[in-house]
Amino acid sequence: MSAPIVEFIVTGDEVMRGIIADTNTAMTASRLYPLGFALRRTVVVGDREEDIVAALRETAARADFCIVSGGLGPTSDDLTAACAAKAAGVPMRRHEPWIEHLHKRWAKIRPNEPIPPNNLRQADVPETAEVLGNPDGSAPAFAMKFQRCLFFFLPGVPREYHRIVQEVVIPRLLQPGVVLRSRILQCYGVTESKLDQMVAPIREAHPEVRFGFRTKFPENHLSLAAIAPDAAAAEAALARVEKLCREVLGDLVYGQDGVTFAQAVGDRVAARGETICCAESCTGGLLTQLLTEVPGSSRWSAGAFVTYSYELKETALGVPHEMLQKHGAVSEPVARAMAEGARARSGATWTLAITGIAGPDGGTPEKPVGTVWLAICGPGGTTTKLAHYRGDRGQIRMQSAYGALQLLRQAIA
Amino acid sequence: MSAPIVEFIVTGDEVMRGIIADTNTAMTASRLYPLGFALRRTVVVGDREEDIVAALRETAARADFCIVSGGLGPTSDDLTAACAAKAAGVPMRRHEPWIEHLHKRWAKIRPNEPIPPNNLRQADVPETAEVLGNPDGSAPAFAMKFQRCLFFFLPGVPREYHRIVQEVVIPRLLQPGVVLRSRILQCYGVTESKLDQMVAPIREAHPEVRFGFRTKFPENHLSLAAIAPDAAAAEAALARVEKLCREVLGDLVYGQDGVTFAQAVGDRVAARGETICCAESCTGGLLTQLLTEVPGSSRWSAGAFVTYSYELKETALGVPHEMLQKHGAVSEPVARAMAEGARARSGATWTLAITGIAGPDGGTPEKPVGTVWLAICGPGGTTTKLAHYRGDRGQIRMQSAYGALQLLRQAIA
Repeated sequence: MSAPIVEFIVTGDEVMRGIIADTNTAMTASRLYPLGFALRRTVVVGDREEDIVAALRETAARADFCIVSGGLGPTSDDLTAACAAKAAGVPMRRHEPWIEHLHKRWAKIRPNEPIPPNNLRQADVPETAEVLGNPDGSAPAFAMKFQRCLFFFLPGVPREYHRIVQEVVIPRLLQPGVVLRSRILQCYGVTESKLDQMVAPIREAHPEVRFGFRTKFPENHLSLAAIAPDAAAAEAALARVEKLCREVLGDLVYGQDGVTFAQAVGDRVAARGETICCAESCTGGLLTQLLTEVPGSSRWSAGAFVTYSYELKETALGVPHEMLQKHGAVSEPVARAMAEGARARSGATWTLAITGIAGPDGGTPEKPVGTVWLAICGPGGTTTKLAHYRGDRGQIRMQSAYGALQLLRQAIA
Repeated sequence: MSAPIVEFIVTGDEVMRGIIADTNTAMTASRLYPLGFALRRTVVVGDREEDIVAALRETAARADFCIVSGGLGPTSDDLTAACAAKAAGVPMRRHEPWIEHLHKRWAKIRPNEPIPPNNLRQADVPETAEVLGNPDGSAPAFAMKFQRCLFFFLPGVPREYHRIVQEVVIPRLLQPGVVLRSRILQCYGVTESKLDQMVAPIREAHPEVRFGFRTKFPENHLSLAAIAPDAAAAEAALARVEKLCREVLGDLVYGQDGVTFAQAVGDRVAARGETICCAESCTGGLLTQLLTEVPGSSRWSAGAFVTYSYELKETALGVPHEMLQKHGAVSEPVARAMAEGARARSGATWTLAITGIAGPDGGTPEKPVGTVWLAICGPGGTTTKLAHYRGDRGQIRMQSAYGALQLLRQAIA
């Protein structure tokens, strides 16, 4: 049983030159994937007739559906409608209802100016096209089938594009007979290759579910996708395989389907009616940033003391001057004092402290770059942990922030 | 003489499904465009042998150069090397020097664990491939010519990908006898179309230098590339045009060639022997994070008070309880009190305060989402500024952090 094949064609010199990134397709792909469509190919070409026509012809022979974006506007580099006619071997026609619409639209926006002639070019579509309109703009979307493929031609402006995808294209694509269910299991504390090894026996025993892997440093994600003739079968296959994977992965799985690590931990803290405050040195606010980028985090995130300097460790957190002199900032007593000082000053339920050497400078033989002391202070007292991280400055900082969150995750497990 | 044709092939189910957006190609396209390469097509395919092989074969017949990204890792969905061999009709071989490299790399990272066998798969490359290595990862890049096209196969991890593009691929693309000198002028406070307009007369008068544009929110970058038969000529042309551009752009240019905005400001603060401390509310540590991700920032960054809650604004910064009650946290008096409280407590030369509504919730008719009060406190007193930013939560937070840095940039201009 095969799912319908979907392709994207993106046109535009600006995309080709890297002036703008194509964000339309990623968004649309993420919407179509769970609906059971096999997205097979995206082709990006510039504003060249030869390249657009070639891309359309290739796709026409290969795909069931294609969304084409860009090149429907009024200017001389808007070639897509003419290219569609050429690729399909049909003439162009002027769509009179859209001409009327353009006149009315123009009169509303600029009542005292005549409509420029090139504006009306937007009503020229291939003879066999079905005009789909555009509630937010002057370039009409249209649909057109040639060879194997039903094409949807859409304006490239993201707001117009997404509304037409959502309101017109997706309802047309949905067919009975193919259902997909998917899940992403997000893991922390395991390498991608180890993750692959751990689930390999399950993957081999269950070809009805597709396995995918993705690294989002320092996390690794496992995606599972089940395609079946009906929802019940797809859900059953997915549930069976997900359960097996969760059994072998245990608490390496921290969350699913797009939650962030900070959000997963924060949600558990919020559910307990508790709060977090951070005391950061080498991470310089990164941990707090990860916590507060979550919408609604003000419920459980009190804030942070980012004490980068010795002086601020003393004045803002009350770390004793003699302790810093005797042990240095990267030491167990200082990590402990930072966590305890933050708790006393903030009144938060949990405080997390991080003090380490993120590099590239500042390492010594006894405390090389990557040496990080972590501390957590909560209702049951204070716990510390010494970690040695590898990588560049950014990676050491990120691992340190995750390490601190992991202490909290374990404390409230 | 026609410009060489360049294509990109991007592989990966996660890109196809929209789980991650392909940001590599836009960045590379913006680098290659000013060098005179005609970027003709980007093809994105999933982790399917049939699709990858087809894409490689089509490109091999059509392009002079192709950068292929993704699918070189150790897991079962990493198929690209085998597909390259199949498309070119050559067998695979194990690259022994890379096996040695992998063993050494693993021994350094995890000395007490044996290397997993699938990790060594990364040393398997097509027989005719030239291994290019990878300074930052375990999957080696390789180059390989078949039919018309010289292919560069690169890991998809952005950090690894970009370094190999810059250090290995671009020097190879330049023809012998051609010297390139380039400069990126990084601007803040100007839109892309305005930037284009401002430099248009210079661009038209100086065809010997190519102009490119790129948006890196909220910054806009202008890249200048001079190509000449020798270094002296390229450098002279570049210097001449750069000077003209700097004259029209003035202090919209904050830096060049990859410096960050925070780093540019921090360097000037450091040169004056001064220090910065932040008092952040809605940005939740983002500003401090931007400052401290700069290596060596401990010289001039004291740290921050991230006072997300009312309570922490009072206890950590001494903002009066009655002031918060009367004016609300997002108000001029509170921004001022945060900046002044941070300066009194940290002893830093400059303090920057941010308090606003990042959304998506929390807006009111008087203070809609995007309302942000900024304050700077320094040797000459305190200045405040009201800003109204547009965009989603992340964009509002980022613009707020930039807005605060801009206050400091102006104060020390």
